[in-house]
Amino acid sequence: MAGSTYGTIFKITTWGESHGTALGVVIDGCPAGLSLCEDDIQIFLDRRKPGQNKYSTPRKENDTVKILSGVFDGKTTGTPISLLVENTSARSQDYSQIASCYRPGHADYTFDAKYGFRDYRGGGRSSGRETIGRVAAGAIAVKLLNELGICFTTFTRSIGPVCISEENFDSSLITKTPTCMPDLAANNHAEEYLKSCMEAQDSCGGVIECQVTGIPAGLGDPVFEKLDANLAKALVSIGSVKAFEIGEGVNVTNLKGSENNDSFYNNDGVIQKRTNHSGGTLGGISDGSTLIMRAHIKPTPSIFTSQETVDKEGNEVTINIKGRHDPVIVPRAVVVVESMAALTILDALLLNMTSKMDSVINFYNN
Amino acid sequence: MAGSTYGTIFKITTWGESHGTALGVVIDGCPAGLSLCEDDIQIFLDRRKPGQNKYSTPRKENDTVKILSGVFDGKTTGTPISLLVENTSARSQDYSQIASCYRPGHADYTFDAKYGFRDYRGGGRSSGRETIGRVAAGAIAVKLLNELGICFTTFTRSIGPVCISEENFDSSLITKTPTCMPDLAANNHAEEYLKSCMEAQDSCGGVIECQVTGIPAGLGDPVFEKLDANLAKALVSIGSVKAFEIGEGVNVTNLKGSENNDSFYNNDGVIQKRTNHSGGTLGGISDGSTLIMRAHIKPTPSIFTSQETVDKEGNEVTINIKGRHDPVIVPRAVVVVESMAALTILDALLLNMTSKMDSVINFYNN
Amino acid sequence: MAGSTYGTIFKITTWGESHGTALGVVIDGCPAGLSLCEDDIQIFLDRRKPGQNKYSTPRKENDTVKILSGVFDGKTTGTPISLLVENTSARSQDYSQIASCYRPGHADYTFDAKYGFRDYRGGGRSSGRETIGRVAAGAIAVKLLNELGICFTTFTRSIGPVCISEENFDSSLITKTPTCMPDLAANNHAEEYLKSCMEAQDSCGGVIECQVTGIPAGLGDPVFEKLDANLAKALVSIGSVKAFEIGEGVNVTNLKGSENNDSFYNNDGVIQKRTNHSGGTLGGISDGSTLIMRAHIKPTPSIFTSQETVDKEGNEVTINIKGRHDPVIVPRAVVVVESMAALTILDALLLNMTSKMDSVINFYNN
Amino acid sequence: MAGSTYGTIFKITTWGESHGTALGVVIDGCPAGLSLCEDDIQIFLDRRKPGQNKYSTPRKENDTVKILSGVFDGKTTGTPISLLVENTSARSQDYSQIASCYRPGHADYTFDAKYGFRDYRGGGRSSGRETIGRVAAGAIAVKLLNELGICFTTFTRSIGPVCISEENFDSSLITKTPTCMPDLAANNHAEEYLKSCMEAQDSCGGVIECQVTGIPAGLGDPVFEKLDANLAKALVSIGSVKAFEIGEGVNVTNLKGSENNDSFYNNDGVIQKRTNHSGGTLGGISDGSTLIMRAHIKPTPSIFTSQETVDKEGNEVTINIKGRHDPVIVPRAVVVVESMAALTILDALLLNMTSKMDSVINFYNN
Repeated sequence: MAGSTYGTIFKITTWGESHGTALGVVIDGCPAGLSLCEDDIQIFLDRRKPGQNKYSTPRKENDTVKILSGVFDGKTTGTPISLLVENTSARSQDYSQIASCYRPGHADYTFDAKYGFRDYRGGGRSSGRETIGRVAAGAIAVKLLNELGICFTTFTRSIGPVCISEENFDSSLITKTPTCMPDLAANNHAEEYLKSCMEAQDSCGGVIECQVTGIPAGLGDPVFEKLDANLAKALVSIGSVKAFEIGEGVNVTNLKGSENNDSFYNNDGVIQKRTNHSGGTLGGISDGSTLIMRAHIKPTPSIFTSQETVDKEGNEVTINIKGRHDPVIVPRAVVVVESMAALTILDALLLNMTSKMDSVINFYNN
Repeated sequence: MAGSTYGTIFKITTWGESHGTALGVVIDGCPAGLSLCEDDIQIFLDRRKPGQNKYSTPRKENDTVKILSGVFDGKTTGTPISLLVENTSARSQDYSQIASCYRPGHADYTFDAKYGFRDYRGGGRSSGRETIGRVAAGAIAVKLLNELGICFTTFTRSIGPVCISEENFDSSLITKTPTCMPDLAANNHAEEYLKSCMEAQDSCGGVIECQVTGIPAGLGDPVFEKLDANLAKALVSIGSVKAFEIGEGVNVTNLKGSENNDSFYNNDGVIQKRTNHSGGTLGGISDGSTLIMRAHIKPTPSIFTSQETVDKEGNEVTINIKGRHDPVIVPRAVVVVESMAALTILDALLLNMTSKMDSVINFYNN
Repeated sequence: MAGSTYGTIFKITTWGESHGTALGVVIDGCPAGLSLCEDDIQIFLDRRKPGQNKYSTPRKENDTVKILSGVFDGKTTGTPISLLVENTSARSQDYSQIASCYRPGHADYTFDAKYGFRDYRGGGRSSGRETIGRVAAGAIAVKLLNELGICFTTFTRSIGPVCISEENFDSSLITKTPTCMPDLAANNHAEEYLKSCMEAQDSCGGVIECQVTGIPAGLGDPVFEKLDANLAKALVSIGSVKAFEIGEGVNVTNLKGSENNDSFYNNDGVIQKRTNHSGGTLGGISDGSTLIMRAHIKPTPSIFTSQETVDKEGNEVTINIKGRHDPVIVPRAVVVVESMAALTILDALLLNMTSKMDSVINFYNN
Repeated sequence: MAGSTYGTIFKITTWGESHGTALGVVIDGCPAGLSLCEDDIQIFLDRRKPGQNKYSTPRKENDTVKILSGVFDGKTTGTPISLLVENTSARSQDYSQIASCYRPGHADYTFDAKYGFRDYRGGGRSSGRETIGRVAAGAIAVKLLNELGICFTTFTRSIGPVCISEENFDSSLITKTPTCMPDLAANNHAEEYLKSCMEAQDSCGGVIECQVTGIPAGLGDPVFEKLDANLAKALVSIGSVKAFEIGEGVNVTNLKGSENNDSFYNNDGVIQKRTNHSGGTLGGISDGSTLIMRAHIKPTPSIFTSQETVDKEGNEVTINIKGRHDPVIVPRAVVVVESMAALTILDALLLNMTSKMDSVINFYNN
C-alpha cells in the first residue's frame, strides 16, 4: 500500500532510498502566499545533517535542497512544492554484506518478507535518510505555524541514563550542544556516556521532548482524528521510536484523578488551566495550553560488535556491521520529531477552519 | 473535519452520543463470506458493558446490538454492515450542571472552543459510550482474524501502583477477575486499592497490554503507515490514553543496542527471533513474532470531590460532579484496546495482499 | 473495498439493502450550528419516494427519516449525524426468481462475480433504494448551501425522444409535473410516450440537468480534484447514469475555439463572462457563473417482456421479471442528481477555505 | 486542498509547472517485482511529446524521463517510484502578456480567484504539460496491466465534424496517423479540416475513445466507488474534457430497455453478454466484457485571433495570444486518456483482491 503520503489538507509524499540518485518530498495543499526560499528549508536539513560532531556518522553529505515547483516570485502558489536532495556520498561497497544477511534490529528481514526482495544499499527505503523528506516538509510547516504565533521547542530530554534537569533548562543550548540537550551539565555527562558506548562498540537510545506554544484551542477532531492520536502516529512513524507520551504520559498511572485533573480558572478574561498534566489536549482537542509530547528512541541497531543472525536462505551466520553509523541517533532525530509534530498540527489547524457554520458564512459572505 | 471514520480497506464509521437515541457503527469493506450473527458482536459489547461489578458505574444498559444491513443468510455480503445499539438508560437530569460548567479533565471546554456549543448530556460525543461503535466493529475484526489464526490476549497490567507479576500470569482469569487482571493476587490488591480510591471519592488509572499471536510477517507499510505507528494512533485515539508503548517501550532507553537487538535464528526451517524486545515489528513491519503493545490510561476525570473550574462565561465556580462514574475505567477499556488493535491489524493485513507482483498475478490468473 | 463513503471534509457513509431492516447514512464533518430538523430531510426524501404517480412503482413506502445523533437543540453539533429510514414494504416473495438468475442490465452477475454471492432480495445493495442515503445527506448539503446563497434548479430535460424547449421553461413546474419537466407541453408529450412504453412492457431513459447559481469563484482543486471531475464521479456513481456533461458537453466538438471561448468583461466592477459555454468552471475551478451539468440515464433495466439470460450455474433460461418497477426512473432520480451535486460542491467549498495564507491568518488572528 | 494525488492503493502524486525547473510524479503502492526501466516510460511520454507534426506546437521538448527511486536491479521494490522530466525549452518571454490578462477559456482567472496570484508562465500548473506526470505513471500502470492480459486501444474517434467509420477501423494506424485516427480516410479529412482551422487562426475539439479488453469481472465497488464513476472522474480531470460516456453513453436515451439490455448467454462454459451496450460495467462493477469509454475534448482555448477580455484590475482589454499552441489537442491527449483509464482500472483491480473472505484465507494460509 501507499505508505509514503501523510496528511489530509497539508499533504506530503516522500520518496527516495539511502543510496539512490536522490531523495525528496512533494508538499501539496500548502496555502498560497507563504514566503518561501531554499534557505528556509536548508536550515532544517542542516539540523539533521550527518557528520556534524563525533557522535554522528562521519559520512559527509551536504544534503542541499532544491525547490523544483510550487514557488513563484518567492511565494508558495498553492500547487505542489517539489523538493529534491541529491545523494552525493553513497558508498555502496560498505553494505555488500547486508545484501544477503538480516541485520538484527533492522528492517532487512521484514522488507524481504513483504516485498520478496529489497534495495539493500544502506538500508534502502528503511534508512534514516528517509527522514530528509519529512524534515524538508516540516521546515515549511514550522515556518507557516510561526507566522500564526505557534512556536516549537524540541530537545533531547535524556540519553541512556542521563536526563536533563528542569532547573538547568536553557533552550538556547539546544542548537549548541552536540546532544541537543538544553542543559550543559547533562550534556557533558551524556557525552561521557556516549564515549563509553563507542568504546564498547555499542549504542544507546534516549528521549526527545517537543513543546509547542501558541496553539489555539479547538484543533483535532473527536474519536479517531484526535490531535494526540495523530501526534502519536506521527512520532511512532519515525524509525526507532518505541513509545509516545503526551503530558504526564506513563506517569499518569501514578496519579489520582484529583492530582491529574487540571483546574480551569479565569486569567484576566481568558479561560486557562492552572496546571498542564494533560499536555495540552482534552478529549483529543487542543485546550490552548502548551502541547507537550515525548518520543522514546531505541539504541541504534547498527553496532560494531559481532552479532548472530541468519541469511536469506536461513543459514545461521555471524555478522560484523561496517560502515558509518551514529552511536546514538537521538540528537539528529530532534528535528525529525519537530517536523512530524508540525506537519500534524498544521493539518489539524487547517481542518479546524470548517468546524463552525459561522466560520463558513463569514468566509464566503465577506 | 470528519473524525469518526477509521481504516482504508476495512473502514468503520461510528456515530452517537451518550444520551442520544442510539449509537452505532457502519463497517464497510468487510470481505464477503464471513459468518456473522448478532451474538458474535454482543459478546464483545458485554465485555465493555457498565454495571458488571462494583468498580464500574451502576448505570445499567443492556447495550443490545442489532445488525441492520450487510449480512445475508448468516454471512457478510461485502456491503456496509450497519450496527445499532439503542440508549435505554439515559438520565439526562444528572448532567444539568455540566451544561454550563467545564469539568476538569473532560472535553467540555474544548468542544465549546471548537464547535461553539455542545451536547452536554453525559458528555455527548466525548463520552466513553462512544466506544460502543469501536467495540462492535472490533468484534467483527477479531472474528475475521481468528479465522486466520491470529489471536488476542488483552488484559489489565496494572491499576494504580498494583502490577501483575509474570509468574502468576493465567490468561483464563482475564474475563473472571473484576479488574481483568490475569493474576489473582494482583487482582485482590487492586480491588483493595480501588476501594480506598472510592472511599476518598477519588479515581485512578492503569495500564492495558495487548498481545497478538499468529501475525504473519509483512504487515504495515514503510514510512507513514508503519504498523506500530497506526497502532499508536489507534490506542491513543481511545479517550484517556496518555501513552503508547510497543515492545520494550519506554524501557528501551535503559538498554544498549547489544541488549535491545533481537537475534535471528533458524527454528527448524523458520526464521525467528530469539528475543522480542521489538514487540513484533521491525521498521514498522510485522516480523512474525508476537505483537506486544501497552496503553497507559489516566484516572477517571469524573471524581466526586469538589473541584475548581469556570463556567461558559468565565466565572470561577466550584463543581460537584454527580451521576454514575467508574472509579477506574481500565477494566472496561480492555476490550476497547483489543478492538482498536484488531481493526488496525486487519486493515494492514488486507492492504498487504497487493505488495508483490506475484500475488497479483496469482490472484487474477487462477 | 469500502465504496460507501463519499467526501473529504463533508463525508457521508451510506448503508442498507432494498429489503433489509432499514437504510441510512452517517454524515460526518458537517459544520456545527446549522439549524436542522427531520422535516428538512423528509422534504427531499419525499421527492424520490415511490408511488407518487402512475410512472413510478406502485410500491408504497413512507420512507420516514429519523435523526439518531449529531443534532442538539435543533442545531448540528459538528459530530456525526446518523439518519435512518426503516423498510416497511419489503415483499421478498416477488424476487424469488432472481435469486438464481442474472437479470440483464442489472448488477446480479457482477455482484456474484465480485463477492461470491449476493443479497438478491430486491437487488440488495444495488437497488435504487440505496439512493435514500444520498438524498437524506443531500438535503443537509443543499440546506447549508442555500444559507450561502447557492441555489439548485434540477429538472428532467428529456424523456426518450421528448425534450423540453427553452422558451417554455418554467421552473415552478418541476415539482408539479409527474415528469419533473419545467415545460408543460413537453411533459404532456413525455407522458404519452411513457404510456406507450408501458403498453409495450418496455422502458425508457432520459436526461437530467442541474443548474447551480451563486457559486463563488475558486471552488475545486487543480489536476485530480477539479470540481467538474468530482461532479462527473458524483453523477456517474448514480446507478443507470451512462454519460456526464458540463456546459456544452458533447456539443463542444461541434464548436470552434472562437465560438466556445467565453469572453470576460467588467460588469459594474465584477469580472464576469459574456457567455457560459464552459458551464461554470475553468481549469476545473468554479468561475462564478452558473454551474450546468447533465446526467444521461439509461432505460430501466427491469422490463416485463421475456428476456434471455443465464442462471448461476450457467444454464440458459428465459426470465420474466415481476414486481414493482418504474417504466422510467428519471423523475425520481432528479433529486438524487441534485443531492450528489450538492454534496460535491459543499465539500469543495469547505476545502477551499484553506487555499490562501491570508485566509488562514485571518481565521486564527481574529 | 491537495488535488495532485490520485488513487488509493496505486497512488500517484504529480507536480510541476509548465515553465518551472522540472515536472514529475511519485508513484506509491506499485507492487514489488515489476520489471521497469526508463524506456518503458519514455515510450509513453513520446506519444504526448510536442513538435511531432504540424498540428502540434512547434515547441521542441525531449521530455526525457529519469527514475530517481523505487527501482532496483531492474524491478520495482514496492517503495515510491519518483520520476522526473526536466523543462528544457521554456521560453518565458512568450507569456509576458498573460501575466496581467485573463485568457478566455483558460484557468488564469480562476487560479487568481482561488490563490490570489499565479505562476503565469505558460499557464503554470494549469498547462497541458501537467499531464507529463499522468502519462509517466500511466506507462507503469499499462505495463502492469498488460502482464495480466489487459490491453488498451485508445484512439481519436473524431476531430471537429470528421468521425472515423467502423468499417475502416485499423488499430495499427493509431500510432501512424498524425491525428491518431485508426482510419486513413478519416485522418485525411481531419487533416484538411485542421488546415482550415489553422488558416482561420482558430481551433477545434474532438472525441477520444478508449477500449480495454481482458478486464476480469468484479472490478469497482458499489455505490460511490463504481468503476465507471471513477473512470468519469479520471477522464474529466484531464483539462479540456467536457463530457464522459461509457458504453452507449448519450445515446442511451434513444434506446428502450429491451434494446439497451445486454442478454447473458453461456459461451462454452463462460458467462458472457451477447451485446455490450453497457460498455463493460453493470452496477458500476466490470462485467468481463470490453470497457468502452469516450472523452469529449473542447477546442484549444489558445487561438490567434483577437479576443475581448479583462485584466487583473478589471480593465477591458483585447488580447492577442502568441506563443506555440496546438490547433487541436486531441491527438496528444490520446495517451493521457489511456493513462488515466489505466491508473483507475489498476487501482480497482488491486482493491478487488480483498473482496472475498476466501481470497484472504487463501492468501495467508498458503
